Amino acid sequence: MILKYKQMIIIRRDLNMSPGKMAAQAGHAAVGGAFDSNPFCLVNWMKEGYKKVVLGVDSEEELMALLDHANSLELPVFLVRDFGLTELEPNTITCLAIGPALGTDIDPVTKDLKLL
Amino acid sequence: MILKYKQMIIIRRDLNMSPGKMAAQAGHAAVGGAFDSNPFCLVNWMKEGYKKVVLGVDSEEELMALLDHANSLELPVFLVRDFGLTELEPNTITCLAIGPALGTDIDPVTKDLKLL
Repeated sequence: MILKYKQMIIIRRDLNMSPGKMAAQAGHAAVGGAFDSNPFCLVNWMKEGYKKVVLGVDSEEELMALLDHANSLELPVFLVRDFGLTELEPNTITCLAIGPALGTDIDPVTKDLKLL
Repeated sequence: MILKYKQMIIIRRDLNMSPGKMAAQAGHAAVGGAFDSNPFCLVNWMKEGYKKVVLGVDSEEELMALLDHANSLELPVFLVRDFGLTELEPNTITCLAIGPALGTDIDPVTKDLKLL
């Protein structure tokens, strides 16, 4: 089965978050991205089994450049800022969801990134 | 500010998933739990900033016992089974979301668990 829809979760490696912290941030991003998507994409993505790919970047600047690129293509996005109650400074930008959307629409933004 | 609503993500430690794999599973659980919640809880949880706590268990049995307990209390839940395309065997049960719901409703189920 070829999955047409996907969601990319892009996480900042440079913050050295614990696996649990990272999982929580990915959860925020995933939910936020789902609610920013359009119902057609969302339903198809869910039907296909919620394909999700987790990628890494090494700085806030790199993450913000991806956000700008995704916004310029009108892709659904969700940027996560941590409240900073535990491991991080308040309002640290930790990760970004792009999609759920058509994979072919997302690929131009994320094709050069590596898996986390 | 006291946050009344939360979502718990409970992940199997015994599978030794990579941090990226774990983040993806948490993302699945978070989205699934959000869509299994009722609109009132969901909106309040989002307004409060999506409080999410990531906990660990050491076996599938432990996870399934939590699912049964949560179901008996009629809490929103979502159990994640991995397709097994990458690190795991097909249909491995990897994690569970409980909530978003009132923290006081969830606590009886998860109070003895440790952070991941």
